[in-house]
Amino acid sequence: MDFSERLATTQKTANSLLCVGLDTDPAKLPGAIRGSDDAVIEFNRRIIEATSDLVCAYKLNLAFYEAIGEWGWSILRRTLSHVPEGVLTIGDAKRGDIGNTAALYAQALFKTLGVQAATVNPYLGFDSVEPFLSDPERGAFILAGTSNPGARDFQYLKVGTRPLYERVIRKVKSWNMKGNCGVVVGATRPAELRRIRALVPDMPILIPGIGAQGGNLKSAVRYGCSRNGLLALINASRSVLYASGGEDFAEAARREATRLRDEINRYRAAFFPRSDH
Amino acid sequence: MDFSERLATTQKTANSLLCVGLDTDPAKLPGAIRGSDDAVIEFNRRIIEATSDLVCAYKLNLAFYEAIGEWGWSILRRTLSHVPEGVLTIGDAKRGDIGNTAALYAQALFKTLGVQAATVNPYLGFDSVEPFLSDPERGAFILAGTSNPGARDFQYLKVGTRPLYERVIRKVKSWNMKGNCGVVVGATRPAELRRIRALVPDMPILIPGIGAQGGNLKSAVRYGCSRNGLLALINASRSVLYASGGEDFAEAARREATRLRDEINRYRAAFFPRSDH
Repeated sequence: MDFSERLATTQKTANSLLCVGLDTDPAKLPGAIRGSDDAVIEFNRRIIEATSDLVCAYKLNLAFYEAIGEWGWSILRRTLSHVPEGVLTIGDAKRGDIGNTAALYAQALFKTLGVQAATVNPYLGFDSVEPFLSDPERGAFILAGTSNPGARDFQYLKVGTRPLYERVIRKVKSWNMKGNCGVVVGATRPAELRRIRALVPDMPILIPGIGAQGGNLKSAVRYGCSRNGLLALINASRSVLYASGGEDFAEAARREATRLRDEINRYRAAFFPRSDH
Repeated sequence: MDFSERLATTQKTANSLLCVGLDTDPAKLPGAIRGSDDAVIEFNRRIIEATSDLVCAYKLNLAFYEAIGEWGWSILRRTLSHVPEGVLTIGDAKRGDIGNTAALYAQALFKTLGVQAATVNPYLGFDSVEPFLSDPERGAFILAGTSNPGARDFQYLKVGTRPLYERVIRKVKSWNMKGNCGVVVGATRPAELRRIRALVPDMPILIPGIGAQGGNLKSAVRYGCSRNGLLALINASRSVLYASGGEDFAEAARREATRLRDEINRYRAAFFPRSDH
């Protein structure tokens, strides 16, 4: 089963397109658990326990752990051990380096950490992405149109008559020999999302930027899903993790994740009524 | 003193433009020290001891350490503790993420690890680079024209009449308000290096790709240096680290680093005869 099929199957089984981003900031932990060396793991463990039946995947943003240093990598590894079988894990690392170095980054993510997918930067071209594509069951989400203001600096530059991010999409399409390429498109870019889904009808699209970043959930579902209402992987981080700053943070995270999953599913039912989800 | 002045001063004092890349692969360690958990640190320590009077900087490629996992970050930190005062350190991490995440990557590199400069990917635009530029004394080398084959996939696409990497250079020029921006241009790209030096006459250029990757040292010096024969930071990794696979690896590394420094200095004397180095 290639990564794209694996994602679709997981989403059907979970009846959820929701991905929760474990972008855990030690400074934002609820007072009740703050302070100990293991506070971040404890927080992550309780968020996972409270939400794992509501999501198809967790995305771990490596920057939040690297900022802590070597202890951060221990937290990453131990957090991953709490994710139940059947829920996908994505290392949001946005790596990009020349071939022999990219192979080591792929090793760090897929072997040392053991996540099932990673985000990758396209600027260095094919040999920087290839090591992430060698195992068909593991996926690479390549950055196309990101959710941040700086996306305008280069991604929208016209190459011929079309923006650079479309060139990236077309290249990724040609790299997808094993069915394990995906792309990243911010929820803050609905028009681009629609255009990109038309270009890659059957490819997973990771869609960050709903919640704190203000992206629109309805258009993320409408324009991000494949024809059968799947393969959009809709990520929320801060709005779930910090739904409450009190002792009830896990319950509050569950409520917010439930609300998001259900809202996504209502839009799926409305826009993809004949699909088999 | 901003990063660009700091680099120039360090290069003058050391009389060297050479940067040694500590891209240490545990599988390539000499048999004499292979095996123990501390073998990589021991190797790095001896390479640093044998070469620190010959270089202006060490570049640490994070992938080689991340592939080992949490222990790798401990090795990174302890390796850095062996670098003498007065030699610059560069975290070759090629990070690129949205603003709030980029701030954490900058923290990981500049505070947690404590390196003086980092390599950064431009694809996400200004807010992904800005956190690396907040301290004028710390530098960001932004990827422009990389040394690998995949560089052709996007970096050379025409935007208007000029290649994308030139757009990157022009943007970096506009971001250089604090004198701490640099760019990365592979030694395998002499024509591009010449063009880029003309566009940014006073900016540091990190030039990887000599040695194992086949880049030409003469053109790296001729086209990479600023008018006074400085600010090109010429990196060699494998050719120095693995100059010998025997017990004499440190002496062999010293011989190769001496040879490179002297060859670079001969080209500097030839092409920049009136400079004050």
